[in-house]
Amino acid sequence: MDFFPSALETLIDKFASLPGIGYKTAQRLAFFVLSLPDETALSFADAITAAKQSVHCCVVCQNLTDGELCAICSSPRRDASVICVVSDPKGVLAIERSHEFNGMYHVLHGVISPMNNVSPDDIRVKELMTRVSDGGIEEVIMATNPDTEGETTARYISRLLSPFGVKVTRLAYGIPVGGSLEFADDATLMRALEGRMEM
Amino acid sequence: MDFFPSALETLIDKFASLPGIGYKTAQRLAFFVLSLPDETALSFADAITAAKQSVHCCVVCQNLTDGELCAICSSPRRDASVICVVSDPKGVLAIERSHEFNGMYHVLHGVISPMNNVSPDDIRVKELMTRVSDGGIEEVIMATNPDTEGETTARYISRLLSPFGVKVTRLAYGIPVGGSLEFADDATLMRALEGRMEM
Repeated sequence: MDFFPSALETLIDKFASLPGIGYKTAQRLAFFVLSLPDETALSFADAITAAKQSVHCCVVCQNLTDGELCAICSSPRRDASVICVVSDPKGVLAIERSHEFNGMYHVLHGVISPMNNVSPDDIRVKELMTRVSDGGIEEVIMATNPDTEGETTARYISRLLSPFGVKVTRLAYGIPVGGSLEFADDATLMRALEGRMEM
Repeated sequence: MDFFPSALETLIDKFASLPGIGYKTAQRLAFFVLSLPDETALSFADAITAAKQSVHCCVVCQNLTDGELCAICSSPRRDASVICVVSDPKGVLAIERSHEFNGMYHVLHGVISPMNNVSPDDIRVKELMTRVSDGGIEEVIMATNPDTEGETTARYISRLLSPFGVKVTRLAYGIPVGGSLEFADDATLMRALEGRMEM
């Protein structure tokens, strides 16, 4: 016998399907949403729909955007000869926070990981190759996370890029090994950008 | 400058407005929702809308339901002469899990708390009085949480009920089953001693 109405059970299940949210927390969140004024709760639902419908990948750098080009790719003030390669959109945010980088980005949307069945074809490597082979790129900075998979991805891409004669660099190990870009503090990120080395 | 599309920022803000969810977690959840297949993500939005639209309080016990009466109030097998008073719908679930209670419930949707500006008029006390004054009730079990506010609420309601001549009881205090004496706090041990029963 269910003691909660089915619509509430469904909502709890939805919250519980989110990463890091257990059943008890899901219950708490669902009750909280129910306790909100109608308008606020429905605007939450709308936010999900709107984000899902309007957000997609920038045709150039693959970062998330709601236009055809993202704000960075369409800015005339950015240096189009340097590409910083990150594994996900949170990486872009992290590097932008350091205010040290004025080039473009390339978001891979993943890292090569044989353990998780992610091959180079599953991430946006091909799009990066197209950008570099189109010319005008002088340097590619590999800024994947400093863990095994990020490192593997960086080495793999660096090897692919060698025929093009562009300089390929790697963020310096100012970022703690085993950590995640997302949680690196601004100063550390700045040092990491300054100390980047050729691969 | 925002580096995420505004629809994504909005979604992150919505998640961050939930209790116990900080900005980083909200970011993670929003990215997770974006990574879901369209159908799954939109069904999340629908679940919020549906829950908000169909779930309301049972006209008798004030528990959450999607009908006019909740499953318990409309069941002919429940003993309508006993009402168990809980502070929120999760209390109903907890008591039902014990399989020990076959009466009805009354959900207060809060506890009296001068600190948080919650007076008896803000919770469903009036509805309980109406049910008791309508007659047919023999016992009211106070099952609010065993903390200061729950206790205050129980005492307040118990005083209001005294003119009606119904038996008002309180859940027993004591050491939790499976717990350890060593870790029981002084107040609990005191209550456990006070409430000792003959074997």
